[in-house]
Amino acid sequence: MGEETVVIRLLPPGAIELLDQTLLPGEERYLRLGTVAAICEAIRELRVRGAPLLGLTGAAAMAVAANERGVSEDALRSAAEELRGTRPTAVDLGAAIDSALGVALALALPRAERPRALWENARRYEANRLAEDRAMGAAGAAVLPPGAALTHCNTGTLATGGIGSALGVIRTAWELGRLSHCFATETRPLWQGARLTMWELKRLGIPATLLPDTAAASLLASGQVQAVITGADRIAANGDSANKIGTYGLALMAAHHGLPFYIAAPVTTIDHACADGAHIPIEFRAASEVGGFARQSWTPEGMGAYNPAFDVTPAELITGIITERGVLRPPYGASISALERISGT
Amino acid sequence: MGEETVVIRLLPPGAIELLDQTLLPGEERYLRLGTVAAICEAIRELRVRGAPLLGLTGAAAMAVAANERGVSEDALRSAAEELRGTRPTAVDLGAAIDSALGVALALALPRAERPRALWENARRYEANRLAEDRAMGAAGAAVLPPGAALTHCNTGTLATGGIGSALGVIRTAWELGRLSHCFATETRPLWQGARLTMWELKRLGIPATLLPDTAAASLLASGQVQAVITGADRIAANGDSANKIGTYGLALMAAHHGLPFYIAAPVTTIDHACADGAHIPIEFRAASEVGGFARQSWTPEGMGAYNPAFDVTPAELITGIITERGVLRPPYGASISALERISGT
Repeated sequence: MGEETVVIRLLPPGAIELLDQTLLPGEERYLRLGTVAAICEAIRELRVRGAPLLGLTGAAAMAVAANERGVSEDALRSAAEELRGTRPTAVDLGAAIDSALGVALALALPRAERPRALWENARRYEANRLAEDRAMGAAGAAVLPPGAALTHCNTGTLATGGIGSALGVIRTAWELGRLSHCFATETRPLWQGARLTMWELKRLGIPATLLPDTAAASLLASGQVQAVITGADRIAANGDSANKIGTYGLALMAAHHGLPFYIAAPVTTIDHACADGAHIPIEFRAASEVGGFARQSWTPEGMGAYNPAFDVTPAELITGIITERGVLRPPYGASISALERISGT
Repeated sequence: MGEETVVIRLLPPGAIELLDQTLLPGEERYLRLGTVAAICEAIRELRVRGAPLLGLTGAAAMAVAANERGVSEDALRSAAEELRGTRPTAVDLGAAIDSALGVALALALPRAERPRALWENARRYEANRLAEDRAMGAAGAAVLPPGAALTHCNTGTLATGGIGSALGVIRTAWELGRLSHCFATETRPLWQGARLTMWELKRLGIPATLLPDTAAASLLASGQVQAVITGADRIAANGDSANKIGTYGLALMAAHHGLPFYIAAPVTTIDHACADGAHIPIEFRAASEVGGFARQSWTPEGMGAYNPAFDVTPAELITGIITERGVLRPPYGASISALERISGT
């Protein structure tokens, strides 16, 4: 079934290795990072990305911090603050950092044990990723209509460290013989679909077709696609979901064409403290990302750009939210709070 | 009010000069073309583009053909065939070529007069462009709500040879103090918005902001835009309109947010023989245009692409069709056939 991809390596006592996603698909280079500043740079520059993988990176970064800066509460809290500030929208990053901080600062834990506890915490996080993604994939494959699916951005191994969220569902449906074809948007401005999703689909041997983001409505109107499925970076308590810019438009197009629109995301993506989409902070990124790519620009100099990294899809446009614990259905206020009661979080 | 741009020069007896739009905004280079083959290449490679400007180019190309290949009916008809085959969706090109052919082959016209008649026909076409665009701009500026507008692709001087269709409306509204700001999509895969529209807006001094195509739904949801306005490449008798890929999605987004969606196009864009959108031929372009730009590619090799150049916006999503003879309103079957009765075409 194609090649598995390693996106992060935990190297105690003081480093991690990350596959530099900004160089894909042209080059597969691993970065060895041993400081909080270097990890923050990698997150900010999107060398590592994807909400669940950012969670794992955050958990591991706290272990790196203990080695680099020592285990005092002040040192760990300031590292946590720096890491959290790199990407404000992705909930997993902040949650994983807070959880690591909780582990390290547990009253019963001797100070000297803090580094070991932080690495164990990161290892546990890593082990859970694959198991959760497999469960999400199975739950999603069961509800995805047979045929072809359209996806956006990258939500595969490169995004979660496991088999992926939305792309994990697509992969599982393909393995079960239920999915015939995967269409992927380019995902401007950073090309995650063209660069990363197409690379993963090719390695997995799944028949795939790329399209400009502008061609999505035409594709859905053509009848070649049976479902749209994306990931999410933060899900509010009412089901409103923030995801890569362009997702909201795809959800509108799916609704207009009577096609199901699914979100696939681990339950950690749900922010129970966030009432609705209006309360999700949206990161705006540099104008230099628009009108070109990297150092290439095809637009006149000095122009302004509207460049939010995410948009919010209202709950009423979402057919189901696929998690590792099952598929949430509307009304999401009720299904999400039921999930909260079961997990006891 | 900024600089005027020359996009085509008629140079009897045997050549035209075209501004090579594939090099903008980096370089302003004019191509001197004296053969049908060279003009066909320029059209196919999008060095010249935009439905109305293609009409003018087609009219001039027939005069070039008479000089290059002689004035026999066979020679002119075969040149017409080659030119018509370059871009199947744009109606103006075929209509202008047919009209030129009719002028040259008029029974009353001596053979020796054919070259002169073809150049005169091209000059008349050119003179009409500016007058028609100005009329379209005035009609559109009167109905566009005050505030900011979002546009797609390029529909300015570079697309019509006059002041533009949708961008001509925006320019006129700006000149009248009714428009405060213009938002422009990048327009993947060929970046006409990023490369051409932003270049024109900058030259005209109109405050402008560029956005990735993916950010359009987010922008409309934000309340910063009061109308969406685009051009059209072919309008069916029922009002269904083919335009640059991505237009249909924008129309859906506008409708969902309760914003007016206008088409601006000269009446020559209306194809009375075409009953509805399902009968409009859609050009599919090469996979190499997707996942990168020009010789740059950021996607794995050998992938398939879904790359239609146009999509069809159903009439029910269109608030009004702005023409040089006024604004058509739904039901378009009636308003378009009324137009036909008045013009006698």
